[in-house]
Amino acid sequence: MISEFDIIRRYFSRPTASAVLGVGDDCALLQPSPGMLLAATTDMLVAGRHFPEGTDAGTLGHKSLAVNLSDLAAMGARPRWALLALALPEADEGWLAAFADGFYRLAGDHAIELIGGDTTRGPLTVSITVIGEVPANAALRRDAALAGDDIWLSGATGQAALALEHLAGRAALPDGDFSACLARLQTPVPRVGLGLHLRGLARSAIDVSDGLLADLTHVLEASSTGAEIWYESIPRSGALASCRDADLAMRCVLSGGDDYELLFTAPLSRRAAIEALSAEIGLPLTRIGAIVAGPPAAVVRDAQGKALLIASKGYDHFA
Amino acid sequence: MISEFDIIRRYFSRPTASAVLGVGDDCALLQPSPGMLLAATTDMLVAGRHFPEGTDAGTLGHKSLAVNLSDLAAMGARPRWALLALALPEADEGWLAAFADGFYRLAGDHAIELIGGDTTRGPLTVSITVIGEVPANAALRRDAALAGDDIWLSGATGQAALALEHLAGRAALPDGDFSACLARLQTPVPRVGLGLHLRGLARSAIDVSDGLLADLTHVLEASSTGAEIWYESIPRSGALASCRDADLAMRCVLSGGDDYELLFTAPLSRRAAIEALSAEIGLPLTRIGAIVAGPPAAVVRDAQGKALLIASKGYDHFA
Repeated sequence: MISEFDIIRRYFSRPTASAVLGVGDDCALLQPSPGMLLAATTDMLVAGRHFPEGTDAGTLGHKSLAVNLSDLAAMGARPRWALLALALPEADEGWLAAFADGFYRLAGDHAIELIGGDTTRGPLTVSITVIGEVPANAALRRDAALAGDDIWLSGATGQAALALEHLAGRAALPDGDFSACLARLQTPVPRVGLGLHLRGLARSAIDVSDGLLADLTHVLEASSTGAEIWYESIPRSGALASCRDADLAMRCVLSGGDDYELLFTAPLSRRAAIEALSAEIGLPLTRIGAIVAGPPAAVVRDAQGKALLIASKGYDHFA
Repeated sequence: MISEFDIIRRYFSRPTASAVLGVGDDCALLQPSPGMLLAATTDMLVAGRHFPEGTDAGTLGHKSLAVNLSDLAAMGARPRWALLALALPEADEGWLAAFADGFYRLAGDHAIELIGGDTTRGPLTVSITVIGEVPANAALRRDAALAGDDIWLSGATGQAALALEHLAGRAALPDGDFSACLARLQTPVPRVGLGLHLRGLARSAIDVSDGLLADLTHVLEASSTGAEIWYESIPRSGALASCRDADLAMRCVLSGGDDYELLFTAPLSRRAAIEALSAEIGLPLTRIGAIVAGPPAAVVRDAQGKALLIASKGYDHFA
């Protein structure tokens, strides 16, 4: 049987050029960049809850890093270093190699180095911490939205949730649509580049992990503002564009989690710059509403201005 | 049922004076100290493996932070910030309050702030990342031991392992001895202060988490040196001082994990300073051997100089 230390040596010890000291000592040693704040975040993914048992290891390696990168993107921070804690039911070398490949491929896309971690036996659980950097006054915080700000959304929400609905037998998607939705669920693309471009453009930001309305509500609570969302302006892409079940579509778009798009607010004076950015980076950025004075809740209105009743805002692990 | 967000608000949102931004946004924001390196480490504790199911929550809150602080101590780093990822089978408020108290009490002892985390449902698992700081040339690395160095040990090893032997029915301790050994196992005291004092005194260091010989071997491998250990010079305290089962005592002292003492090497010229430090901080620091040229293995000798045969060096989660 491969040992704990061999697992680390074989699969999780790639060179770490930017770290003073990487994997293999009591701690990693890092040289922070002068004048920058550190941005740190952690996410834990549990088998049977965040992903089905039997999920492809490479997919899991990608996704468990991606959800952390998404948090840094929502802060406008550049990710630099990751620590990986991994509990495994058994030390399967094929699984480990595939997991490491998925992890390192995404890490490589963003020049992130794995600098440390912990490996133990236990129910399959992945816990990753990512440390990044952001200039002191450029961080995109949740508490900075102001009444009058536009509310913007990158890409489109709902496809990951639609894949889950299909898997649960509550939707029946054609094969091609299902594959596309499943890719959104399993290998989300964290909007790291967008987050960096939004420094100085956006006022506040959050990533859509629990659901558009749930995450927007976090911004509203932190900023002590309300919001109006124009339902028809929210982009629908892929299978959601042709979905004929209006309730299902609304549930996925507004309350489905796991999209990892960025939801951000910006003053009206930034509209042209944000539209230009969208064209420059080839990613749709859509105005879907406005921050308003009022209690920290979002009102969703249809094309006629009528407030829609929303059953569920999003996911809560203990609800 | 209490929500995920209420758990964080009620139990894990104490003020974080030193952080620019603590719990509650996508990331925490931290201001690193000028001229310091960051030291980062992560440890994951799984129920039924690192601690028995039903372990007291306060004890677990303490221990899961302590094992990370021990890694920073072994680097000579000052711990500053922690991130906590917690998977829970259910949201039991009594359990959460006790866990938070155990965690924050130890954190408070070292002025550490909880700056972020993740809470989810799942098999009980605690994954903590601690970030600290150390001056660039003062870090106590594993790869810096030199032939001729003394090998030092803080406190004494083996009591945590003796508690486990008792629990497994392989030893029978009087109640008082068992309580003392159990306290070593459940609420270890990370040698944070010692680690800071060892900057400039020690050449290399590691904490004893897997077992004295196993952890010493990590130093030897990283430093490409050998070691001689004088078995009779290793301190025995509490129940181990009076233990009449010589094999059991040896197994606990040399191969028992979970002690979280520091094992460090230093040049002979530092002997007087280290002895003075021991008196100053009221913690025994004992010379137990020497680094020698040779392959990366430790030879343990008895009082007559005869090499002892050691069955197991320490713990491996996948062996």
